[in-house]
Amino acid sequence: MIAEILATGNELLSGALVDTNSAYISEKLVETGLEITRHTLVGDDAVELGATLTELAARADIIIVTGGLGPTRDDISRDVAARTAEVPLQLDMNSLKKIENFFATRGKGIPKSNHRQAQFPSGAEILENPIGTAPGFSLKINRGTFFFLPGVPVEMRKMLSEQVIPRITKMIKTPFFNRCKTISTYGFGESALEEKLDGFQDCFPGIDLGFRASFPEVQIKLYQKERNQATLMEKQQQALNWIKKRLGQKIISFDGFSLATIVGDLLTRQKATLAIAESCTGGLVANLLTNNAGSSDYFILSAVTYADLAKKKILGVAPEIINEFGAVHEETAKAMANGARKLAGSTYAISTTGIAGPTGGSPEKPVGTICIGLATPSGVTSKRYLFTFGKRKLNKMIFAAQAFDMLRKELLNNK
Amino acid sequence: MIAEILATGNELLSGALVDTNSAYISEKLVETGLEITRHTLVGDDAVELGATLTELAARADIIIVTGGLGPTRDDISRDVAARTAEVPLQLDMNSLKKIENFFATRGKGIPKSNHRQAQFPSGAEILENPIGTAPGFSLKINRGTFFFLPGVPVEMRKMLSEQVIPRITKMIKTPFFNRCKTISTYGFGESALEEKLDGFQDCFPGIDLGFRASFPEVQIKLYQKERNQATLMEKQQQALNWIKKRLGQKIISFDGFSLATIVGDLLTRQKATLAIAESCTGGLVANLLTNNAGSSDYFILSAVTYADLAKKKILGVAPEIINEFGAVHEETAKAMANGARKLAGSTYAISTTGIAGPTGGSPEKPVGTICIGLATPSGVTSKRYLFTFGKRKLNKMIFAAQAFDMLRKELLNNK
Repeated sequence: MIAEILATGNELLSGALVDTNSAYISEKLVETGLEITRHTLVGDDAVELGATLTELAARADIIIVTGGLGPTRDDISRDVAARTAEVPLQLDMNSLKKIENFFATRGKGIPKSNHRQAQFPSGAEILENPIGTAPGFSLKINRGTFFFLPGVPVEMRKMLSEQVIPRITKMIKTPFFNRCKTISTYGFGESALEEKLDGFQDCFPGIDLGFRASFPEVQIKLYQKERNQATLMEKQQQALNWIKKRLGQKIISFDGFSLATIVGDLLTRQKATLAIAESCTGGLVANLLTNNAGSSDYFILSAVTYADLAKKKILGVAPEIINEFGAVHEETAKAMANGARKLAGSTYAISTTGIAGPTGGSPEKPVGTICIGLATPSGVTSKRYLFTFGKRKLNKMIFAAQAFDMLRKELLNNK
Repeated sequence: MIAEILATGNELLSGALVDTNSAYISEKLVETGLEITRHTLVGDDAVELGATLTELAARADIIIVTGGLGPTRDDISRDVAARTAEVPLQLDMNSLKKIENFFATRGKGIPKSNHRQAQFPSGAEILENPIGTAPGFSLKINRGTFFFLPGVPVEMRKMLSEQVIPRITKMIKTPFFNRCKTISTYGFGESALEEKLDGFQDCFPGIDLGFRASFPEVQIKLYQKERNQATLMEKQQQALNWIKKRLGQKIISFDGFSLATIVGDLLTRQKATLAIAESCTGGLVANLLTNNAGSSDYFILSAVTYADLAKKKILGVAPEIINEFGAVHEETAKAMANGARKLAGSTYAISTTGIAGPTGGSPEKPVGTICIGLATPSGVTSKRYLFTFGKRKLNKMIFAAQAFDMLRKELLNNK
């Protein structure tokens, strides 16, 4: 059975608003075992919407449409659906009463424009909206069963799960279980990853492999479809083992989590604490870490010491070190990490000092140079790297990732 | 001229990833004066992609396609474009050399799979990718001129603005000058902004007004189309003056710049320096500020003092203050700002201490509470705010914005 998704709305078409509904619906439909072939997005234009509905009705079995069910003149989904199905609009007294109640409980009379929301194409099955005033409806046109839902995400999501998905599950009667597994990795680009996993398709012909860059991490996606759920899980486990053998510690997480989240998890589990000393990353390392809820359990402080004076004053970096080696150097990174660890009294400290660009590079230390320090209970180390992504923000991102990765490997080896 | 947008990729189709490229492209194309009629999204499936390209080639004049230009097997845009246009693929030696260089500067040989990225449909015009390995291309099929771009947003955006938009502008040959002016604002939601600007359309019938949330800022877009460029600029100036009267200091920038960028500009122009003391924003304020190139001119340090101990040790916040008022309080914010300013010897300091959630709230200080301190040469002030966005990351973002805004207004009043 083929399913398609249609989003409507001028603000989506013009790019003023990003359509997040279609991705959400897709994810839910894939879980039911439907095959999605296309998403389409059109504006509040009767001709374009009508043409699209006609195409979809001929091409797909199940179509979810969002938007255009509001009370205003540019809400045209009801009208265009009726015209496409060649049926008249009919007032539904039950829906009208519910909309009147909606306003009555708010101490208001029903505005005239909201009357339109109780009109449906003749033959449509009405889908109640338990939150807002816009009921949805289901309508068969040609080959396709259409589900029209409001565009407001919170209303759409509730109606999708409570009313649409149960109806679809009854319709499809698929014998398959579907699953998508996401593995996060760091350290290989997409093409290098694909080379490393060469031969996977031969070993696991039933599993589709996908790659997704989430800079600077790359995610591997395993798409599976099996008649038997136990078989699915067993094959998945074999596939994960196979991948683990080839990628080792380049794998960050078998559940799609990011470096910052996994580092937070490892610190929590090991009851360890962390201090950070940042120069070139300018607060990004701390910001990513504190996006984790509960990070106050392990994160003590980050000293974002952009000026050399701050490196000396807060972190106690000896002026001779900066004078002799410069701010961007392995020795400075070590001194920063040591200083942060001592200041915070933390188990670990990581430090970053480098050149994010666009200016500040030299032949010796070009833009993209980063020195990362790691202070642990057993001593301090540091490493220099050169990244050539060229852009300031990308450099900051890869610098931060590399710092997290250095700490992650240390934590993994502790286990 | 009709334009359409096509996004490709299994991870988009399955909903694993939200397509933000299409909205971005739409916005840019609307600014050139093109009419967008539809967005489509298909997976990495040769049959479906081929059918879609054929439909688009018959229906639209300009089509922007994103994705499918990577080196891996599921990157099929080049092949399917060639098949749809009924032309062979040809190796472009120049592109191959560039990809080889890309890997050589990273001290690596070119992986075999990347060879594919130097192959293009015969007759295509190659669009260089200055950042990544995936060049794009332009190809005429039937009625449509296609522009194939990589799906990685940072690469796509650069290529769109530098290579595609100039080509499209030449193609349109309209007698009109089109212009989209972006005004960034902070402090009003979209609907409040719309109310404040009530009457605009009557005063400026030739200018279309649009709103775009770029959380927590809201951008106002003015779309203009005039036969005469001088008239366009004159009307725009009148419109800007009209808007300025109504919004005052809620306007951040008449050129679409963000709070962090404008604060950086003001600091630079006033030759002032800044120190930051962050608790609940966890490094985000420093991170946003250091995304500005050249921020080392005015940014000295940020003390991300997550633990109370760090507030005392680094910022010298008196233990009695935290004991008496708690970490989240106007007095603590003041002490933090004062401490940061003194430590850095900077002109200004801002501080944040609050509750980003999801836990840590109390009836007295619910999640979303933030106290912001501002230390200036003439003293220190602080204010408490309560934001009800509910989500940790959103709270961090609005907290940081509010801190920047407090400093921005101080700097504006200095002028």
